[in-house]
Amino acid sequence: MHIGIVGAGAWGTALAAIAAKNNHDVLMWAVEPSVVADINNNHKNDEYLSGAVLPPTVRASSVLSHVVTNRLVINAIPTQHIRSVWQNVHPVERGSILVNVSKGIEVGTHLRVSELFAALNVGFEFVVLSGPSHAEEVVQFMPTTVVCAGNDQATVVVQEIFSHPTFRVYTSSDVVGVEICGALKNVVAIAAGVVDGLGLGDNTKAALITRGLREISKLGVALGANTSTFYGLAGLGDLYVTCSSKHSRNRAVGERIGKGESLNSIIASMHAVAEGVPTTTAALELASVVGVELPITQKMFDIMQGADARSAINSLMMRPKRTE
Amino acid sequence: MHIGIVGAGAWGTALAAIAAKNNHDVLMWAVEPSVVADINNNHKNDEYLSGAVLPPTVRASSVLSHVVTNRLVINAIPTQHIRSVWQNVHPVERGSILVNVSKGIEVGTHLRVSELFAALNVGFEFVVLSGPSHAEEVVQFMPTTVVCAGNDQATVVVQEIFSHPTFRVYTSSDVVGVEICGALKNVVAIAAGVVDGLGLGDNTKAALITRGLREISKLGVALGANTSTFYGLAGLGDLYVTCSSKHSRNRAVGERIGKGESLNSIIASMHAVAEGVPTTTAALELASVVGVELPITQKMFDIMQGADARSAINSLMMRPKRTE
Repeated sequence: MHIGIVGAGAWGTALAAIAAKNNHDVLMWAVEPSVVADINNNHKNDEYLSGAVLPPTVRASSVLSHVVTNRLVINAIPTQHIRSVWQNVHPVERGSILVNVSKGIEVGTHLRVSELFAALNVGFEFVVLSGPSHAEEVVQFMPTTVVCAGNDQATVVVQEIFSHPTFRVYTSSDVVGVEICGALKNVVAIAAGVVDGLGLGDNTKAALITRGLREISKLGVALGANTSTFYGLAGLGDLYVTCSSKHSRNRAVGERIGKGESLNSIIASMHAVAEGVPTTTAALELASVVGVELPITQKMFDIMQGADARSAINSLMMRPKRTE
Repeated sequence: MHIGIVGAGAWGTALAAIAAKNNHDVLMWAVEPSVVADINNNHKNDEYLSGAVLPPTVRASSVLSHVVTNRLVINAIPTQHIRSVWQNVHPVERGSILVNVSKGIEVGTHLRVSELFAALNVGFEFVVLSGPSHAEEVVQFMPTTVVCAGNDQATVVVQEIFSHPTFRVYTSSDVVGVEICGALKNVVAIAAGVVDGLGLGDNTKAALITRGLREISKLGVALGANTSTFYGLAGLGDLYVTCSSKHSRNRAVGERIGKGESLNSIIASMHAVAEGVPTTTAALELASVVGVELPITQKMFDIMQGADARSAINSLMMRPKRTE
């Protein structure tokens, strides 16, 4: 099959490598001419995923219309850029599949990515793919499992295309649950990073992660998701990896905040996007619409606005005595 | 209140420090005269928890009957030793509380610790205390949360005695759930360690932990536990800390197995007990009685018997395509 990938960041590049390994032709869209040239001429993407070796069947283009006219298109650009990039895109064929791998909620509209694509009226069948899958490990073919959610027919196609001995794809019908997990886990990862940056221990971090997953599931269930999704790969699995891994950008942002750096200075110094930052704002917008409280997300918002990180974490940990 | 602690390992010592901080008198039981002397003369326990500073209100004795005759007694000795140590113990007063902090299932009888104490007919009110709480961090007063399960009256007493600004105690009525979490998380931690030892990544470990928590909850629910316990502090929280922390003995055992060392040589070299090793056997006994399959636990048993670790982990990761 011919596959288009919109975005040539780390995760888009890793998925290109997996699809190519499974004998599919891949065309990636990148804005930067240097990235397009690196992929086409050197079969690598040192800018975003050094270490990945791409076969010649992975090519790149800076012409969006060449990429989005494939039968299966992956969206792998930051969530806050989706609207501007995709606003004039339509599929060539009815039944073309769009696989979104970007995580987050649009600020201002507080739309999940599936809702955003519906609002943009792109006309693709929508599938979301998520799970504990650092790109750096996927391209080293370390055993990885993910979940893709959407309608039965589309998810089975996605499962067929990407399944590989070291890359297992499970299917699900819970789009809302998988999307809320993917968006909110980055906020909890920032909180876990703050705990690291403050020099607090694993006990504190474990408590925060446990409370964090409850908070994520509370919001998701209020939006119609299944509880079990939150304790599966897209929920617990991805939260674990994002909160503990050295590869996680969101955790790293939190760690620098915990060490006393301002959010503005951190963002100014970063190459790739830490999706948890805009999603913190968007999640609070969404939670206020559905009437759910998100104490950890609220504290992360406060910290990003300059509140003291140590008192914020202490106030999250030290609430009145009660039953669990 | 006067508190007895049976066992002077790391966790018993940390709980002594917390209780003493809350102005309770503590008497610890230790077999080794050197440990008794270190606590009484130097107010520390370098053998098991170097770094802990104990006030003079924490004392030690090698006479078990002096320790178990307190109104509240903590059991903090390895699960496989409980029967031999406790077989002739009875409380002095009706309503005395026994707080168990040892994790595991007795090999041969496959009794949980609450069932074991019931079988020994000790006559105490039973409470189990568990959660993400590495002793090393508790004595540094890093924010820590735990859960204690038992009847309402007893758990409120335990909550009062141990609650401290950096040590939060939640109550629960799900003794079975908290016990199964505490026992089986050590088995999953060994598996997580094997992943580390084999040099596999966070993606693999996250998948295994997610699958592991499902496996633990399946066994627990079959025994009458509440699902929510598995996603709380005693379940997810403690599993997170045990699988990711540098302090975890069970994870360390798995790591050495993954690197090719034999279980016998690892055990011979260890000072403290890795409870997950006997619990692997006991959990399989229990699961076969209730008719529940434990794939990860079974593979850990096989590996401990000499099966190849890499193929065992690969076979756990790479099962047929399916829905999650």
